[in-house]
Amino acid sequence: MPFTLAEATTAADVAEARILPFLRATVAAGLLEHDAGTGLFAPCAEFAARRYEAGYLSWSLNANRPYIDHAVQFLREPEAAGGQHQRDGRRVAVSSRWIGSRGFYPGVLSEIIHRKPRRIVDLGAGAGALLIRLLTELPNSTAVALDLSSGACAEAEHAGRRAQVDDRLTVVNRSVETLVNDPGPLAGADIVHAGFVMHDVAQTPEVFAGVLRTCREQLSDGGCLVVTDAVPYVNTPGERAFSALFSYLHESSMGVRLPAEEQWCELFRQAGFSDVTSTPLPMPGSRLFVATR
Amino acid sequence: MPFTLAEATTAADVAEARILPFLRATVAAGLLEHDAGTGLFAPCAEFAARRYEAGYLSWSLNANRPYIDHAVQFLREPEAAGGQHQRDGRRVAVSSRWIGSRGFYPGVLSEIIHRKPRRIVDLGAGAGALLIRLLTELPNSTAVALDLSSGACAEAEHAGRRAQVDDRLTVVNRSVETLVNDPGPLAGADIVHAGFVMHDVAQTPEVFAGVLRTCREQLSDGGCLVVTDAVPYVNTPGERAFSALFSYLHESSMGVRLPAEEQWCELFRQAGFSDVTSTPLPMPGSRLFVATR
Repeated sequence: MPFTLAEATTAADVAEARILPFLRATVAAGLLEHDAGTGLFAPCAEFAARRYEAGYLSWSLNANRPYIDHAVQFLREPEAAGGQHQRDGRRVAVSSRWIGSRGFYPGVLSEIIHRKPRRIVDLGAGAGALLIRLLTELPNSTAVALDLSSGACAEAEHAGRRAQVDDRLTVVNRSVETLVNDPGPLAGADIVHAGFVMHDVAQTPEVFAGVLRTCREQLSDGGCLVVTDAVPYVNTPGERAFSALFSYLHESSMGVRLPAEEQWCELFRQAGFSDVTSTPLPMPGSRLFVATR
Repeated sequence: MPFTLAEATTAADVAEARILPFLRATVAAGLLEHDAGTGLFAPCAEFAARRYEAGYLSWSLNANRPYIDHAVQFLREPEAAGGQHQRDGRRVAVSSRWIGSRGFYPGVLSEIIHRKPRRIVDLGAGAGALLIRLLTELPNSTAVALDLSSGACAEAEHAGRRAQVDDRLTVVNRSVETLVNDPGPLAGADIVHAGFVMHDVAQTPEVFAGVLRTCREQLSDGGCLVVTDAVPYVNTPGERAFSALFSYLHESSMGVRLPAEEQWCELFRQAGFSDVTSTPLPMPGSRLFVATR
């Protein structure tokens, strides 16, 4: 999407004389290209690749900034520190989306799309980006976006209207855990997806078992649960650095111990799922679990 | 320098049960190695290379954090923003040292050491790391560390005592600009070094000209001025990204326009220096200027 200097000035609400040096610096850095003939600026060919890489840095250094800035306090008294220093939800969301752009969304999308589900439920749906992509690709399907954050739910409603899929998208502002007592949002789903939310639920084993059983009961025949999540401390040369950071920050600062790959699979089987597969995704330490009813 | 778990526990003043998972994560990430036999932890072979790379990230995202967190305000009203949001001096110093470890210190050290100066003056000497290395390598030389920051000067005094070079190191808490009226600290220097401080002085051309002339007048016969600094917007594939960020942040948020390579050289010549050379250093956009009296 090329843009003019005037458009950038308006979008940023910054004077032209100040935005121009910024755009020029971005061109000099090799992130934007500038066509001197038309005056248009456009992202360079590698922009998406650079943003994907920047996602890992932004997650590590910006989203998790409180854990790094107060590292000693988190080591000495993790609970008190956790109460005082919370992550900025927007930084977490943006950096996760950048990582996801190549790290897990493409794999999840293709896995779900090729199954042609008529009804999809996304647990921890955030601002609904995944479901909106799916509803756009699957024009006869309907979906439920469930999220604990009312802000994220409002964004999902808004994004659904903007993408003109709001007639097929229901947004539900609730926690995953409440599904055990009221499984309504899951009813008739062909696919239930959960991206990086189940590791939180799994910290209370009996609740997690209840959620998994409820998902299975509510799925249609042949339906499946698709869980995108992480396994701890993957040891391959390309994965070990980020996987160690991801695993350690979860256990030390967020009170989350990631289940090992085989533990995830066993938990799905114990809830009654018959066929369980696990596939690595590009994000270091991430796995795509598919558990069939 | 290998260390034990007990030593880490004492140094960090954190309980063993909490420091151990941190050390294990660092081993899993491939930054430390753990010898199960002796129980010793030690930096991995590539630790110095990783820290050098991390220096660029830490400078970009941590040291310059105020400029990124308040980017829109810096675009709209740079002077007000600059007054409100200052960088953390320690973050700037630590990240610069990590970049310097391979980005410019080795080149500067070898340039100065091979000239065997008997007296060295370092302008903007910070905590004195460069001079302490030089005095250790040159046991018959003396040095003057000059810095604007009283905190940095106190650290330099302390570091000099620890390295047992304090009898040959004089620390002067003053700005570079004051040398025009009182050139005392420069007297009899064989080498005057200035690392990434002259671009600030250069923002006021007549003051910069006076400082350069004063340095030349005070240098011994055959002495030289060694300036490690940056040139703006270097365009080579390996340099353009960091050079653009460095140049833009200096002009937009610090009010510093870096002189171009030829401008630097011309300013040295105008101050009377005869032989002026410029050599690229590994840090993108950096140059080692040597201007001979």
